[in-house]
Amino acid sequence: MLGGARETGVAGQTEHPSCRIREMAKYDAINLQDKLATFGEQWAPKVIAELNDYQFKLVKLQGEFVWHSHEATDEAFIVLDGAMTIEFRDGAVALTAGEMYVVPRGVEHKPRAEHECHVLVVEPRGVVNTGEAGGSQTADNDVWI
Amino acid sequence: MLGGARETGVAGQTEHPSCRIREMAKYDAINLQDKLATFGEQWAPKVIAELNDYQFKLVKLQGEFVWHSHEATDEAFIVLDGAMTIEFRDGAVALTAGEMYVVPRGVEHKPRAEHECHVLVVEPRGVVNTGEAGGSQTADNDVWI
Repeated sequence: MLGGARETGVAGQTEHPSCRIREMAKYDAINLQDKLATFGEQWAPKVIAELNDYQFKLVKLQGEFVWHSHEATDEAFIVLDGAMTIEFRDGAVALTAGEMYVVPRGVEHKPRAEHECHVLVVEPRGVVNTGEAGGSQTADNDVWI
Repeated sequence: MLGGARETGVAGQTEHPSCRIREMAKYDAINLQDKLATFGEQWAPKVIAELNDYQFKLVKLQGEFVWHSHEATDEAFIVLDGAMTIEFRDGAVALTAGEMYVVPRGVEHKPRAEHECHVLVVEPRGVVNTGEAGGSQTADNDVWI
């Protein structure tokens, strides 16, 4: 809301031209770096946008995550800053800023990063970070920033 | 495939330790700038990855697109290089590199960019770029690079 001047205007009074701005909706870009600056927690995905029933989540990674899989869905990793590796049982993919990878559903994987790495994850609403594995690294889900 | 040496090996011969590498699958990162360098066409989305039934598409924008909407789906724009504006009937959102926006389903919008802008679009497989509007700016769908 841009202000309540219209509500307090005198009935019948000619509207000032600048009041036209009140008829325009406000649309705000989602700035990834601004959002990243709002939290420090690692391995705890934060939701920044939804696309139908999918979510865009920012996550800060450092160290080793647990081996896990998501039986019902693929999972996209887009690296924004730094570098990470996604290990598979039979190989690995190294990702740096400006690179992405989609882990297929059901495939066991283990993300890791030597230094803190910032990632944009895309996956359906409701996906838990540790998938079928659970454990102490399981983060709260659906946390918006 | 990393080579066919195994197929030509002598039966019963001790495998050389370096042959171990053949048992590892090969996983390649998708590098966004490398993919962008493979095409010059504007307003013609190119698919680089799929996530379940969603696609990640790179598109180069310059000038004005048509007013259109997608009745069945939201549409995510993530700006990689440059700047663009998404106009709505009652406002607009300005996006620069590192910013994103999700246009809700059914909402008329018109992307435009003064200078060439590179965007990662995320939306379900099968979405046509001009939505309900059609016209000369309609691009071939499902073109992979």
